[in-house]
Amino acid sequence: MTLSVRAIAEASKRASRNLASSSPERRIESIRVASKLIEQDRLSLLESNAQDLADARHMLDSGEITAASFERLGLTDKKLAEMTHSMLAVAELPDPLGRVLQRTELDVNLELEKITCPLGVLAVIFESRPDAVTQISALGLKSANAVILKAGREVERTASALVTIIRQALKNSGLPEDSVNLVTGRESIQQLLGMSDMVDMVIPRGSKQLVEFVKANTRIPVLGHAEGVCHIYVDAAADPDMALAIIDDSKTDYPAACNAAETVLVHEQIAGSFLPRLVEWLGSRNVILRGCEKTRAILAGQPVEAVADAEWATEYSDLVLAVRVVRSMDEAIEHIHAYGSSHTETIVTQDPIAAERFLARVDAAGVFHNASSRFADGYRYGFGAEVGISTSKLHARGPVGLDGLTTYKYVLRGSGQLARNYQGPNARPFTHRRLPTDSRHN
Amino acid sequence: MTLSVRAIAEASKRASRNLASSSPERRIESIRVASKLIEQDRLSLLESNAQDLADARHMLDSGEITAASFERLGLTDKKLAEMTHSMLAVAELPDPLGRVLQRTELDVNLELEKITCPLGVLAVIFESRPDAVTQISALGLKSANAVILKAGREVERTASALVTIIRQALKNSGLPEDSVNLVTGRESIQQLLGMSDMVDMVIPRGSKQLVEFVKANTRIPVLGHAEGVCHIYVDAAADPDMALAIIDDSKTDYPAACNAAETVLVHEQIAGSFLPRLVEWLGSRNVILRGCEKTRAILAGQPVEAVADAEWATEYSDLVLAVRVVRSMDEAIEHIHAYGSSHTETIVTQDPIAAERFLARVDAAGVFHNASSRFADGYRYGFGAEVGISTSKLHARGPVGLDGLTTYKYVLRGSGQLARNYQGPNARPFTHRRLPTDSRHN
Repeated sequence: MTLSVRAIAEASKRASRNLASSSPERRIESIRVASKLIEQDRLSLLESNAQDLADARHMLDSGEITAASFERLGLTDKKLAEMTHSMLAVAELPDPLGRVLQRTELDVNLELEKITCPLGVLAVIFESRPDAVTQISALGLKSANAVILKAGREVERTASALVTIIRQALKNSGLPEDSVNLVTGRESIQQLLGMSDMVDMVIPRGSKQLVEFVKANTRIPVLGHAEGVCHIYVDAAADPDMALAIIDDSKTDYPAACNAAETVLVHEQIAGSFLPRLVEWLGSRNVILRGCEKTRAILAGQPVEAVADAEWATEYSDLVLAVRVVRSMDEAIEHIHAYGSSHTETIVTQDPIAAERFLARVDAAGVFHNASSRFADGYRYGFGAEVGISTSKLHARGPVGLDGLTTYKYVLRGSGQLARNYQGPNARPFTHRRLPTDSRHN
Repeated sequence: MTLSVRAIAEASKRASRNLASSSPERRIESIRVASKLIEQDRLSLLESNAQDLADARHMLDSGEITAASFERLGLTDKKLAEMTHSMLAVAELPDPLGRVLQRTELDVNLELEKITCPLGVLAVIFESRPDAVTQISALGLKSANAVILKAGREVERTASALVTIIRQALKNSGLPEDSVNLVTGRESIQQLLGMSDMVDMVIPRGSKQLVEFVKANTRIPVLGHAEGVCHIYVDAAADPDMALAIIDDSKTDYPAACNAAETVLVHEQIAGSFLPRLVEWLGSRNVILRGCEKTRAILAGQPVEAVADAEWATEYSDLVLAVRVVRSMDEAIEHIHAYGSSHTETIVTQDPIAAERFLARVDAAGVFHNASSRFADGYRYGFGAEVGISTSKLHARGPVGLDGLTTYKYVLRGSGQLARNYQGPNARPFTHRRLPTDSRHN
């Protein structure tokens, strides 16, 4: 790439304006063509990837990348098939654009519509995974957003080969090639993060460190979460068998996931009978328990280490679980608000009144009753695709589907109306009548 | 105030958690009580205001505040009546909380709801206007958000007297007094802007300089717009009489408003006949025209100054209008995207196809056909109250009503389901059935 990052961003902005008024059929077509070309160019993609892997092996040896990064880098026939399959699945999703969110008659022949439209330009900063290129490009095209991809050095050749193919598909489908752009080099990150006039959203895909770096270095809205410190509150009225199964699933199904549980809060009324069963169950699953003073007293004789105060806010991302005995649901909620990351908080109880109280009072993106915290996920929620998970409260919260890549605009259709006729002593009244929408979603 | 800004913010956060689970009736009651107490304490409020005014007179003389600021500061019986009337109107609005935005059955007895809830803590930084205190407090209480008010020095005594009354009303209604707090002093602004862990949204209410300062100095989401550079595009197929009337209303109804027009773009096919009428009409309304080369050629002999390139992006906020002749709608749209602020853009035309093309292609919070740009306003849109106008694309765009002070959370109600049973070779399938909502809005 000889163009400057700024010039690429400007080209992306122009492309985004064309994309915004392109037909959904044409954008779907471009995703299908890209998927087909990727299958056709399989061998040359694997070759580019092999070169990346060879270099990455040295980066691994010198500690520049982690073993996990290295593992995620490799392409195989199977992986490529999964990638094109995911692209086609995104193409088939319902169109997120042009949805009428609200319709209001302001007066006769003066009608206001609130309709969804694309954000504009997305900058995606990712590490290792080649599937980030195909997934984000498909999501961008489906939602008519231009995409600027910034690939980590370890995956540059693979990313470049994929982007070349996708741009060919765009050209073949009569869409602007600059709908998908690739930038490289460490310094391009800072440049992208500084272009709030060109970039409408930044999506970091990678380590917690990357997400934190991006959040701390831009005023552009960031879609991404750095932490998931999720709690399971076992109420006095919990079914202990259900509580054990939910804790097990929430902790051990995939401990590195952000929706895995880190802390269990147990009501003191059942702690005496429940904790010995918990320690036995989790012991058989190789989960290490840490506990508050009361937990350790109840489990005297068991090797349960104490939890330091700051540790309650830790995302272990491992087979480690902190346990605290609480005197009441209020104390549990206070703990959650003090140490949680507002990601997903669960109550296990057979008492529907306690459940509803917990669901209403806890401030988090997800509040669950009698279900594993692992359900906090775009696919499981039924979004078809997951763009990311957000612990921000604005724009999008929790698992984010295609809708998270849209904004809306107000369309007003009149017949020459003037605002001044609707004010003052002889003001014409507004009707402000809510009209039905034929929105597919609510 | 002897408490630190940090301590006040922490108290606000705690109060916000209580507010979030309070009943709508109790919050409405607190607004009504506050309105009644303000009426009762009329005389002492006027006295506090008189002291502010006396000091502000000196600040005006020394140039510390503007004449416009000074004018907005004064309270009268009429003004107080308007303030309490507005509070009661906010109390009567539909409840923005607990609305079910989406309901999905994930599986039997596993149901997901997306429901609206408060943001948390709002920091409102305002100048001069005492009615900012009552309006924002009422909006905050209605939406169950705690509010931290930072008043300009010129209005400190008045704001303090009003906040004391509102906190009394909160106490009388059994709600936490810290739902509404006041901080003072210039340094408290920087402190508030730095507390992204406590403050969920910043709302600047005042000069363009204030809004720009706030936006440049915080990572907390800001609800506010700095500029409105709005265009009227007069298409080849425009009804010239309608175009004149719409331009007149958009420019002269309230030139200082952000939704006033700054530039008129005229299709070259009708420029020859339209521009002489425009200059005559606007001359009679004391509007000064500035023009591009073609405009000046057509209006040769008229005193139309040239527009420098950078000037096309200027918000005149005055009886000045820039005029440019364009060869096509495409050129008009390019101009709008290059110089506009994505606030409100209008096309005047009798050609429905041209209109729909403009509405689809222009990227702005509001796109209007045959209507004055001045309709871009929360009250006119039928929101009941306007919290602000946003030219940001995320969270809230355009005029923002009470809904802009809410976020949502996902509530999942299960019966012991585990995520691991829904994956792998024998995965139980999700039903992902969209269920009806009884949502009042769409």
